[in-house]
Amino acid sequence: MSDIVKEFNDYRSKMNDKILADNNKIIKRIFNLDTNAYTEGALDVKTKELLGLVASAVLRCDDCIKYHLETSYNIGLKKEEVIEALSIATLVGGTIVIPHLRRAYEFWDALESQGE
Amino acid sequence: MSDIVKEFNDYRSKMNDKILADNNKIIKRIFNLDTNAYTEGALDVKTKELLGLVASAVLRCDDCIKYHLETSYNIGLKKEEVIEALSIATLVGGTIVIPHLRRAYEFWDALESQGE
Amino acid sequence: MSDIVKEFNDYRSKMNDKILADNNKIIKRIFNLDTNAYTEGALDVKTKELLGLVASAVLRCDDCIKYHLETSYNIGLKKEEVIEALSIATLVGGTIVIPHLRRAYEFWDALESQGE
Amino acid sequence: MSDIVKEFNDYRSKMNDKILADNNKIIKRIFNLDTNAYTEGALDVKTKELLGLVASAVLRCDDCIKYHLETSYNIGLKKEEVIEALSIATLVGGTIVIPHLRRAYEFWDALESQGE
Amino acid sequence: MSDIVKEFNDYRSKMNDKILADNNKIIKRIFNLDTNAYTEGALDVKTKELLGLVASAVLRCDDCIKYHLETSYNIGLKKEEVIEALSIATLVGGTIVIPHLRRAYEFWDALESQGE
Amino acid sequence: MSDIVKEFNDYRSKMNDKILADNNKIIKRIFNLDTNAYTEGALDVKTKELLGLVASAVLRCDDCIKYHLETSYNIGLKKEEVIEALSIATLVGGTIVIPHLRRAYEFWDALESQGE
Repeated sequence: MSDIVKEFNDYRSKMNDKILADNNKIIKRIFNLDTNAYTEGALDVKTKELLGLVASAVLRCDDCIKYHLETSYNIGLKKEEVIEALSIATLVGGTIVIPHLRRAYEFWDALESQGE
Repeated sequence: MSDIVKEFNDYRSKMNDKILADNNKIIKRIFNLDTNAYTEGALDVKTKELLGLVASAVLRCDDCIKYHLETSYNIGLKKEEVIEALSIATLVGGTIVIPHLRRAYEFWDALESQGE
Repeated sequence: MSDIVKEFNDYRSKMNDKILADNNKIIKRIFNLDTNAYTEGALDVKTKELLGLVASAVLRCDDCIKYHLETSYNIGLKKEEVIEALSIATLVGGTIVIPHLRRAYEFWDALESQGE
Repeated sequence: MSDIVKEFNDYRSKMNDKILADNNKIIKRIFNLDTNAYTEGALDVKTKELLGLVASAVLRCDDCIKYHLETSYNIGLKKEEVIEALSIATLVGGTIVIPHLRRAYEFWDALESQGE
Repeated sequence: MSDIVKEFNDYRSKMNDKILADNNKIIKRIFNLDTNAYTEGALDVKTKELLGLVASAVLRCDDCIKYHLETSYNIGLKKEEVIEALSIATLVGGTIVIPHLRRAYEFWDALESQGE
Repeated sequence: MSDIVKEFNDYRSKMNDKILADNNKIIKRIFNLDTNAYTEGALDVKTKELLGLVASAVLRCDDCIKYHLETSYNIGLKKEEVIEALSIATLVGGTIVIPHLRRAYEFWDALESQGE
């Protein structure tokens, strides 16, 4: 697996374990909701991932963007679909989104190259 | 047409005319992009409206939410699809999104009752 | 009850009922968490209300501020405690918090005068 | 004086008096800094007002925008200078700034018409 | 002292010295207020630190979170009190706070292990 | 050239090339607007750079701050002018801007030392 993808996932996974081991009810339930919110419902899974991605992008949360990029990649969203979603985020959120766009491109490239 | 829908559209339309009459190039081009960004592309029009809606909701912009709710309504998105998108916005953006959710519900009701 | 307090509570209550009647699971659970998060735990109820108030103030959510002001008032927090919390919010969040501070003062006055 | 200008100033002035009467040291000093920060220094007064205006616009604080618009108007900044500053705010902050741009135009018109 | 704690404090201290040596009055006074705001007043020091922590967390400022975590640790706040405060921040601010929660846990662990 | 300046420019330049090669119309036009918005108009180039800098600072976008610092440096803005602009950003945006102020000072120092 590409280094920046692996590094992100390892840290995320290690710290999530620590957080959940702590048994704070509110935090545990928010983590739980976070898993449920992106499952198939009135909207399909692909649309929901893109909604999570755009929300993360306009709020400029790099780790959230990475998470949704990886899931988007894994469920088969195409690069042009992901970029189109991010173009809306850049328009709505303004040029301050651009640095996050750069890092999103880098992460997507890393996702694409991980199987090579 | 329902009062809060008409009031929103009248003010928006009147002030947009003033802004565009002013001929500031940057602003005019941003308005222009705003129209183009939501047309069919790699993603369909419904998905793009929902992306605009969620971006507006997490950034807590009531007027932007209203605009995307009205377009969503007009292109045939169902209430449950819109609400599911807003549920993701509320999870990602936190409980501070809830007051905007209240006003979104009120506006959607107004949209639904305007033909009655 | 003072008009701005009653108006806030009536609208909030009416729209919350509509939202909860809609049975979106994610939203319902977030509402539920919102109730649980402020109950006594490692921290007492007064401290937690002030934490909710300051979070609302720096994120500049007037309705959230009003909600926490009312609860703060009802559980016996003194005005000077509430203002001291808001002074930290204004310092951390900057002068853009000041307009919300004005409305917070107005709402607190309304809370104090409601029993008169 | 135009109604929306007078209404804004009256409320602002009344509530600022209440806040300052309360003698919270942190808040009083922030108010004091807010007066000092826009006086002539390495940068002239007009530039500083525009900086305050753009900061207020990208942070989407309508009352702060109104305040800086009024001061900008009073110190002789031209409409096209103010609009150019706001165009940068709209580009940097994204289309969510547009609703605030509408209200800024309305307020500027009210400032211009107050002497008529 | 743990590496990430020391690294944070060294950089913070070195750059604060440079900033304060520059003699910009507004910035110096804001630094000064920042020291005063968290001293005992109507609220005790522990409550005020938690207010600063929650404000920092919902505004997603990692360095501010680290600063308040260290002070919280030094004045004897327990981990479960700090986590409970952060759980409110995560609920109010949404899942975008979670990456900051991960880094907060890591920093708290570093604070706890620094004496070992 | 100083390391942190070179590192920033190399990454920015490499990723911008990738983004623009992708031919997403919305993103390309936003990049284009970003170039045009800071050219001489009703306001001069120096004022516009400072507006871009303050917008970036209150929105806490380190890469955007770096970009505007470098351009400010290249067009001959003096350190005290830049710092005065940043002091307004810190007042309006609050103490959460301070960590970005530290990194801005570091970057400005790097810009100044690059010719040495």
